[in-house]
Amino acid sequence: MTVNKLPIPVVVNGAAGKMGREVIEAVAAADDMTLYGAIDRNPEVFGLDAGELIGGEALQVTITNEMEPLLAAASQEKEPGVMVDFTHPSSVYTNVRAAIAYGIRPVVGTTGLSPKQLQDLAEFADKASTGCLVIPNFSIGMVLLQQAAVQASQYFEHVEIIELHHNQKADAPSGTALKTAELLAEMGKTYNPPSVEEKEHLQGARGSLAEENIRIHSIRLPGLIAHQEVIFGAEGQVYTLRHDTSDRKCYMPGVLLSIRKVLQLQTLIYGLEKIL
Amino acid sequence: MTVNKLPIPVVVNGAAGKMGREVIEAVAAADDMTLYGAIDRNPEVFGLDAGELIGGEALQVTITNEMEPLLAAASQEKEPGVMVDFTHPSSVYTNVRAAIAYGIRPVVGTTGLSPKQLQDLAEFADKASTGCLVIPNFSIGMVLLQQAAVQASQYFEHVEIIELHHNQKADAPSGTALKTAELLAEMGKTYNPPSVEEKEHLQGARGSLAEENIRIHSIRLPGLIAHQEVIFGAEGQVYTLRHDTSDRKCYMPGVLLSIRKVLQLQTLIYGLEKIL
Amino acid sequence: MTVNKLPIPVVVNGAAGKMGREVIEAVAAADDMTLYGAIDRNPEVFGLDAGELIGGEALQVTITNEMEPLLAAASQEKEPGVMVDFTHPSSVYTNVRAAIAYGIRPVVGTTGLSPKQLQDLAEFADKASTGCLVIPNFSIGMVLLQQAAVQASQYFEHVEIIELHHNQKADAPSGTALKTAELLAEMGKTYNPPSVEEKEHLQGARGSLAEENIRIHSIRLPGLIAHQEVIFGAEGQVYTLRHDTSDRKCYMPGVLLSIRKVLQLQTLIYGLEKIL
Amino acid sequence: MTVNKLPIPVVVNGAAGKMGREVIEAVAAADDMTLYGAIDRNPEVFGLDAGELIGGEALQVTITNEMEPLLAAASQEKEPGVMVDFTHPSSVYTNVRAAIAYGIRPVVGTTGLSPKQLQDLAEFADKASTGCLVIPNFSIGMVLLQQAAVQASQYFEHVEIIELHHNQKADAPSGTALKTAELLAEMGKTYNPPSVEEKEHLQGARGSLAEENIRIHSIRLPGLIAHQEVIFGAEGQVYTLRHDTSDRKCYMPGVLLSIRKVLQLQTLIYGLEKIL
Repeated sequence: MTVNKLPIPVVVNGAAGKMGREVIEAVAAADDMTLYGAIDRNPEVFGLDAGELIGGEALQVTITNEMEPLLAAASQEKEPGVMVDFTHPSSVYTNVRAAIAYGIRPVVGTTGLSPKQLQDLAEFADKASTGCLVIPNFSIGMVLLQQAAVQASQYFEHVEIIELHHNQKADAPSGTALKTAELLAEMGKTYNPPSVEEKEHLQGARGSLAEENIRIHSIRLPGLIAHQEVIFGAEGQVYTLRHDTSDRKCYMPGVLLSIRKVLQLQTLIYGLEKIL
Repeated sequence: MTVNKLPIPVVVNGAAGKMGREVIEAVAAADDMTLYGAIDRNPEVFGLDAGELIGGEALQVTITNEMEPLLAAASQEKEPGVMVDFTHPSSVYTNVRAAIAYGIRPVVGTTGLSPKQLQDLAEFADKASTGCLVIPNFSIGMVLLQQAAVQASQYFEHVEIIELHHNQKADAPSGTALKTAELLAEMGKTYNPPSVEEKEHLQGARGSLAEENIRIHSIRLPGLIAHQEVIFGAEGQVYTLRHDTSDRKCYMPGVLLSIRKVLQLQTLIYGLEKIL
Repeated sequence: MTVNKLPIPVVVNGAAGKMGREVIEAVAAADDMTLYGAIDRNPEVFGLDAGELIGGEALQVTITNEMEPLLAAASQEKEPGVMVDFTHPSSVYTNVRAAIAYGIRPVVGTTGLSPKQLQDLAEFADKASTGCLVIPNFSIGMVLLQQAAVQASQYFEHVEIIELHHNQKADAPSGTALKTAELLAEMGKTYNPPSVEEKEHLQGARGSLAEENIRIHSIRLPGLIAHQEVIFGAEGQVYTLRHDTSDRKCYMPGVLLSIRKVLQLQTLIYGLEKIL
Repeated sequence: MTVNKLPIPVVVNGAAGKMGREVIEAVAAADDMTLYGAIDRNPEVFGLDAGELIGGEALQVTITNEMEPLLAAASQEKEPGVMVDFTHPSSVYTNVRAAIAYGIRPVVGTTGLSPKQLQDLAEFADKASTGCLVIPNFSIGMVLLQQAAVQASQYFEHVEIIELHHNQKADAPSGTALKTAELLAEMGKTYNPPSVEEKEHLQGARGSLAEENIRIHSIRLPGLIAHQEVIFGAEGQVYTLRHDTSDRKCYMPGVLLSIRKVLQLQTLIYGLEKIL
């Protein structure tokens, strides 16, 4: 892929977490990237090789908990570097600020940044003319589904959402279903004009009512993983968009895309949909 | 199909209704049956040929509103006759009683018989040693789904039901979904033991709660017709039973089966599942 | 909808056909349109009122087989008129040419125009600066599905198509599935790079191979109507687009949209996707 | 669950394999069983505790490669023992014979026993009046699907099968799909009487043709795991049975059920469907 180009140096922060391990594997397998550093605050993994951590071959990258020296070193490389952050709500703000300070572009998957913190980081990135991506959901498939749903909402007046998850999920509806409903609601119309006066013989049968009269139904069963359907209906036709997630590897194409895109930015951007 | 056997004479009561017309067509097409008579109380169709009523060739059967003379004539035939009743809650009891009195076996699709009326008719059929079938749902596919669900309920602890109908349907959940939940509840167990404490951020997200902790979700959209899914989940697997109805012709195999079976009975039987 | 605007006068050509009847009903129900004329070459319907033909109230439009006088009259109206053509491959070319000659904008659902005929009509429309829409598939839902599939093809390397139709359909794969595969193939990439060497123990198991290695599977069963799924797969995720058609009424939003859009055009446009 | 009953002693043969590890975990978690021994021929795991092998607490069971002494010891226990075998085609016959010789009941998930070997083992089990279960597929959900399909085949004339797997699966159709078709074919009827003369414009579009005219379609995409649909169609209705497997944990209920049932048998039984 990279002809006459040096690979992008990538630092993984939160290297020993579930997502961090996947990122190490994905970066190591990408032709146009190289794993430059791996940070984790779990003492059990200090000094381990990042490749061996994930059960593969050694990558000659030792896991450390010293972020600043690593960022300083990365800032001396010819190629501009990227830091992927899957750490913790309590440390993500500090991590991102430090990265920007060293000219390392952050790609942030950690949740929990407050609006105020986001605002601060955006200003900081602007001043430094440094790209920064904050991505609450790296699933390209789900973003495509949401975009296709928004497109369809221009031609369909009726829509309902079903989301299906394993029964260890406590919250209903899922955050992604609520986000999908919000995107549809932003189209500035009220859905599902009634044809008849509905009667619920059992309360809740018709699901929950999100903005603009969009109904969301949440199924919880063991054996399910993470699934969402958006169903549009009109006279004589039904149009269904469905996304099934079975493994967090599904987020890696979104992470790699973000690593490549953040280098072309001079500002903070929020949401994968903005760079697709 | 009928080797050396005379065809079964069939009287259709409620001949000009939507279901009655389908029954005329199905009986006319069945090798082992003959349309013997057609009754309707709508004066606009008196005197019409039943075949022409449904837009086909003449069947030499004139639609009448005189039930008793027709039943009396049918009772004189060599072959025992059957009356299929798709009329009205207000007349079905009288119709069925009359048929039994004349030795004509009723196959009843009309809803609205009270428990008391059903009890009376059962006793009347017993005394006369005459078969009688009362069938609230002639869909063989749905009965198969319900039987398969009951079978699965012995091995799965978790189940939810989704039913999807056009948005002209006012009631939720559908009667069929409630019936399916009832059949599962009769297995004498409580489903869906919780793994976590669930929180509904929007009321109704988790659907309605039927007996024994079975959840039913009702989707209503134009373009949908009549669909039901029963979803069983267990660690690592999901087992889904789905039935889609697109045309009332789907009930005809159940009607024809009932016509054949009622001749072998000496008592009243309720429900298609009993004769499958 | 129409504030201070005269309704669009619409002529339906092929008024007594299945699609023609639906168009009469849809135009009659649209606030911003009026049924101006109805043409059919079936002598049985000459002289009937178009509204009564479809079992509704009289619309004061008598069905005729005299196209030219009707177009001539329509051309004298204040509002520019539209002719919707659902006739026959043998007459569509003549019909469309005549309409353009009279300044009536054609919306053409009839199939069978040859590339040469299309080219001729396009030139004729250009010379007359008259809009003309030729629409092989009026299903907005299917066009949305195809557009969403094209969008997804930029991010997914693997895709297969399943189309499901009633068992009276002789051809496999369906024209729509082939068209969908063609749209994906036009993205300039080869899909489904193999991971293993596949072995078909039964010939045909892996379906048919369309352009650029896209597989199409055709299911044929009674009870099905017309359904299509495009399934994209990547590590850890599946993204499915599904369209179900249950009634030709589903084409009417596309017809009405075309009637409105053709008035804004000065040229011939082919395909609903161009005006969505 | 076990009231005044000693737990069933279970020996796991092939303890370090993917299935063996799951069986250790499932047996350890079952109230009415105890892990008695663990055998594996991989020298790397000799001497490890079986519980620690699977990343859990120690179970005080050391993994060994000495099968016979372990079976001999198990045969001295008060409670009759069971050996679960997930080893290799080359060793399964010897393992099962040895277990029967020691009065230990085999539950065999290993594939590859020849018909002759199965016959021998059946005779050997009969002579010893010892139960033995050979189970090619421990998925209760799939067996339920197959039984429901067989039940439905009595009332539907039309059926097709779609199986969907990840694109690392080389064979098509899947063994389970072929088995399902075989069970349907055994019902003694030919399915899918044609309504029209079908034309394949692209070869393979209509899938593969198994016995008795049953069509099987095989989808292969990354992101899929293991899924099967059996779709029955009739005029106006579709009845679909679907099974999704996402984790080999789904086989454990079938393994535990087999362990309990084999103790009640005096003969060899083949197939989970025989004991459901």
